[in-house]
Amino acid sequence: MNQQELFEQIKKKRSFLCVGLDTDFEKLPEHLLERTDPVFSFNKDIIDATAGFAVAYKPNLAFYESMGSQGMMSLEKTVSYVKSKYPNIFMIADAKRGDIGNTSNLYARAFFKKQNFDAVTVAPYMGEDSVKPFMEYPEKWVILLALTSNKGAADFQYIKNNESGEQLFETVMKTSQEWGTEENLMYVVGATKAEKLKEIREIAPNHFLLVPGIGAQGGSLQEVAQNGMNKKCGLLVNSSRAIIYASSDVDFADEARAAAQKVQHEMEALLNDAGLL
Amino acid sequence: MNQQELFEQIKKKRSFLCVGLDTDFEKLPEHLLERTDPVFSFNKDIIDATAGFAVAYKPNLAFYESMGSQGMMSLEKTVSYVKSKYPNIFMIADAKRGDIGNTSNLYARAFFKKQNFDAVTVAPYMGEDSVKPFMEYPEKWVILLALTSNKGAADFQYIKNNESGEQLFETVMKTSQEWGTEENLMYVVGATKAEKLKEIREIAPNHFLLVPGIGAQGGSLQEVAQNGMNKKCGLLVNSSRAIIYASSDVDFADEARAAAQKVQHEMEALLNDAGLL
Repeated sequence: MNQQELFEQIKKKRSFLCVGLDTDFEKLPEHLLERTDPVFSFNKDIIDATAGFAVAYKPNLAFYESMGSQGMMSLEKTVSYVKSKYPNIFMIADAKRGDIGNTSNLYARAFFKKQNFDAVTVAPYMGEDSVKPFMEYPEKWVILLALTSNKGAADFQYIKNNESGEQLFETVMKTSQEWGTEENLMYVVGATKAEKLKEIREIAPNHFLLVPGIGAQGGSLQEVAQNGMNKKCGLLVNSSRAIIYASSDVDFADEARAAAQKVQHEMEALLNDAGLL
Repeated sequence: MNQQELFEQIKKKRSFLCVGLDTDFEKLPEHLLERTDPVFSFNKDIIDATAGFAVAYKPNLAFYESMGSQGMMSLEKTVSYVKSKYPNIFMIADAKRGDIGNTSNLYARAFFKKQNFDAVTVAPYMGEDSVKPFMEYPEKWVILLALTSNKGAADFQYIKNNESGEQLFETVMKTSQEWGTEENLMYVVGATKAEKLKEIREIAPNHFLLVPGIGAQGGSLQEVAQNGMNKKCGLLVNSSRAIIYASSDVDFADEARAAAQKVQHEMEALLNDAGLL
């Protein structure tokens, strides 16, 4: 999917919501445990309930890996299901990978060929040859960690370079723009750092940003939109727990739908305010 | 496994060799392709051939993930096989993970509980709460990326902090020593940066270092030992391709044994020179 197609989906659904499929076996509604693949059953019901209000889904790989090869099968089925039933939905593997070039190549193959993800989150520490292999697939995307939503972000990401005066996350964003374009590179910027989004928009005015941290982590959607929206929206805002665990009972899918719809309504108003609809 | 036990294994085997199980389906000897699980068959034969000369194995997760859930099953079988037949061998998941705290928790569970790895490589970009969950398992280890062996290492790892004057990899090493100890924290330092090992030993005199980059990537074992060895050896030097692909024919395991034994001989001499045997 290219940037314009993503923006078209945002306008069509009046939403820039990404639903985080952080599916934890221990939090599944009890009645699903009898199914052959409870994790896939849960994801399928959540997807069918929310697909009208979301432009993207983002399974975090840790949740599936922690269930072993069985979990990886549930993930593969989930991605196939979305891509066959909702081909215009943008699928993000939240994997935070990155390794030496020939190894990153394999991760890229795993996510883009073996599975049919549109994007992978990548950690920048190992530099250019760890990131570029993910950029070699047409219409597939790297989402590079820039400023993350967690407390530990402060440990290294704000370190100031003694030559340029830039903070590390700024250097990561500037340097990586020499490797990719706004057609294959996005950045992770935590919603808990919404006040930083203005600075970030100066460095990357046209790139899409994936913004986690709304909801359970405390970020404000309105602040994110005010500081981070650009002329093609340029935002995918993620919500995980507040949607997929809106209820832990038999009505979990209905409650997830209601939670997603509520966020979509807020997003529609923000897109309207910005004159994008 | 604790630090002293690892050192005992090094003395016993007269080796600090780690064999990288970077098993690529496309490079398997043809006669293995008829087996039920060719990847596991290959790993098993390599392990049986080299276990006398190696103290550690390090499968890189990318190789297994690129084969989908089937690959993850081959990996699970490999780890179980080593742990049942060679319980004193140190198993490293070269995964380069790292995520917000509750997600790193799941990765830790995946590698330390679901599978029986002794250590996981972790990327530092997201800071303390992304690393610490891996430290909460007794006798399990974080191996944190400090100075990697690839070209892209130069993009960010040498950036100098304008307050401390430290380079990023030094800050990573110093800061992370506030989170863990020499009993649960090692560092990745590429053999291609052997001249840096002296500086690194000033920052972390007692920590074990995992050193990739010998062989195919061009690092020198002798230089690594001269600059990096400490009083408990303190080094695990990895070789992947030069051992596991020493031959691509029916004699692959014999050739792998010969290649591993050759490295072990060099290592024995270096341990002797250092007065550790």
